[in-house]
Amino acid sequence: MKVNGTPTRTIWLAADGWAVEIIDQTRLPHAFVTTRLETLEDAERAIRDMLVRGAPLIGATAAYGMALALRGDASNARLALAYDRLYATRPTAVNLRWALDQMRAVLTPLPTAERSAAAYVHAAGICDEDVAINESIGDHGLTLFRQAWDKAQARGAKRLNVLTHCNAGWLATVDWGTALAPIYKAVDAGIPLHVWVDETRPRNQGASLTAWELNSHGVAHTVIVDNTGGHLMQHGQVDLCIVGTDRTTASGDVCNKIGTYLKALAAHDNGVPFYVALPSPTVDWTINDGVREIPIEERDPGEVTEITGRTASGEVVTVTITPEGSTAANFGFDVTPARLVTALITERGSCPATREGLTRLFPERG
Amino acid sequence: MKVNGTPTRTIWLAADGWAVEIIDQTRLPHAFVTTRLETLEDAERAIRDMLVRGAPLIGATAAYGMALALRGDASNARLALAYDRLYATRPTAVNLRWALDQMRAVLTPLPTAERSAAAYVHAAGICDEDVAINESIGDHGLTLFRQAWDKAQARGAKRLNVLTHCNAGWLATVDWGTALAPIYKAVDAGIPLHVWVDETRPRNQGASLTAWELNSHGVAHTVIVDNTGGHLMQHGQVDLCIVGTDRTTASGDVCNKIGTYLKALAAHDNGVPFYVALPSPTVDWTINDGVREIPIEERDPGEVTEITGRTASGEVVTVTITPEGSTAANFGFDVTPARLVTALITERGSCPATREGLTRLFPERG
Repeated sequence: MKVNGTPTRTIWLAADGWAVEIIDQTRLPHAFVTTRLETLEDAERAIRDMLVRGAPLIGATAAYGMALALRGDASNARLALAYDRLYATRPTAVNLRWALDQMRAVLTPLPTAERSAAAYVHAAGICDEDVAINESIGDHGLTLFRQAWDKAQARGAKRLNVLTHCNAGWLATVDWGTALAPIYKAVDAGIPLHVWVDETRPRNQGASLTAWELNSHGVAHTVIVDNTGGHLMQHGQVDLCIVGTDRTTASGDVCNKIGTYLKALAAHDNGVPFYVALPSPTVDWTINDGVREIPIEERDPGEVTEITGRTASGEVVTVTITPEGSTAANFGFDVTPARLVTALITERGSCPATREGLTRLFPERG
Repeated sequence: MKVNGTPTRTIWLAADGWAVEIIDQTRLPHAFVTTRLETLEDAERAIRDMLVRGAPLIGATAAYGMALALRGDASNARLALAYDRLYATRPTAVNLRWALDQMRAVLTPLPTAERSAAAYVHAAGICDEDVAINESIGDHGLTLFRQAWDKAQARGAKRLNVLTHCNAGWLATVDWGTALAPIYKAVDAGIPLHVWVDETRPRNQGASLTAWELNSHGVAHTVIVDNTGGHLMQHGQVDLCIVGTDRTTASGDVCNKIGTYLKALAAHDNGVPFYVALPSPTVDWTINDGVREIPIEERDPGEVTEITGRTASGEVVTVTITPEGSTAANFGFDVTPARLVTALITERGSCPATREGLTRLFPERG
């Protein structure tokens, strides 16, 4: 999508044809800064320190990270090392593994002399495929948004109110986004749409990234604290919820940013549709029970006790918000059971959040 | 409870015998600062700007605010003015009205010459009554905590895990607190207890006030973002939830800090008891349907877009966390339907969150 009027992706090959450039998302929303990745270590750090985040973009960065790793040494040992080190950066993200598996499968049979060039070609292919998948999710989601807008208009509504959690926008992917793709499509289609943006503590990806991208694209939105969604739904102020996912089980359980489960409970309690947008690589076909089987990443408690913002003079500073002596815990994700999900929206269409629904769309996995 | 080893209340008469002193809770947890109130305007500002907060403490401050207002002019007109201006500061808080009604009822029949002295006496009485009520809530809550601890021990648990939202501790009352009173009683009774403290955005009263008071009293606790409770409950990490309330309907609906409803949904979904501690003045016997009938205060969006903390050098600064151009909405409270509340804990005992339950404890209201 556009930044200052310029079409931009979240990851691209540098002008020199070998380094990789990304948006440093830790600097948003206060500054738009791009960063150059030149080594395996740069790619690891970009993923681990969340300069890039969002399942599809993590996968794309890992793919390019492998391309960077194989420059100069494309031996089997180097390939295995790159795979292991990149996989260890964010073990919850199934796309990370998917992208690395793809790269390894393509590169392993090749002579070492051909691996580096092939890695760049295949990483670029993973990026282009992500863009195509997301645009398709946007089109399928638009169908559901049109239905919701018809219902809202029948009630006399002046706008379609959509609630989203975290950032599953173009910043979380290579372009378009997953949960936000239908929003961009709906705006383009002329639906007067307003987004309630959960700030999404502790890292505030909603307040800092979703708000920033909606603002850049001119989409009407209001930032709310994560506590607010239930109240809005009780009062008819939310027509539908849409979120992304880091990992979806074969039975439709959804692992997404911590707090998603609470919004899904509120949607269910108030009869509000709760949609999850996902590219199919996000589905982990090997597991069923998300609550029992998905390990939840525990992150640095400092993400809870400290927060970064800009002062009145424009300086970006980090402040501590808890008392000295109090500790914090920081669970990155939670699991929303499939029973609370109205539908999954994939690149092949939408389906019930069930094994049957998913295998009807992806029979090759059945 | 104690601050630096000194027994302290949240509001007290100054040494000069006429001014009123409070803890400026907006300075916590970074600094412990007391403030002197000398006029009606001081009391209004203390309530409106949340130097004092929490339903019982708001009531106590309003009572003393009326005492301050009547110094020098205790006419009927002045009494009416003080009532109206204090009532307008926080219209959601039913205790505010209760305290003002008490004061007006006591003072109106008196000759104007006697009103000022009587106002001080009656305000002090409201404070002492609050302390007695809260200690009694603590005792009744302790019975429920003992049951929960017996169950937890039977499962082999090493500690009793309690989740609380916002601050319904001694800082929200004159002393003891409402939701935290049973916690202090349980700790005193030797139950190994650990509190999950919701940070409670946007004003972070959990991270700044609840954590501060638990820390001061030596109660084990961990601060979490408001998104986390559902995940913890899914994984058996919460034995019970306990919160306070700003207003409870005659049928047991609970109006409390925004986000309470989401935690109650999660507790219900996971079979975790969800208790609400309340002094009976918090019950609004005139209304039934909380979601429809309780007006929800909308506060300054700046509370969402800005946050205050201390820098590494100890300076307390306010930073903006949203992009320029993004707006925010700030609903202060939500309503938890009675069906999600396991029991109400009052100064006369605990009861089901129903009209029958409440009127059995308070037959004079039936």
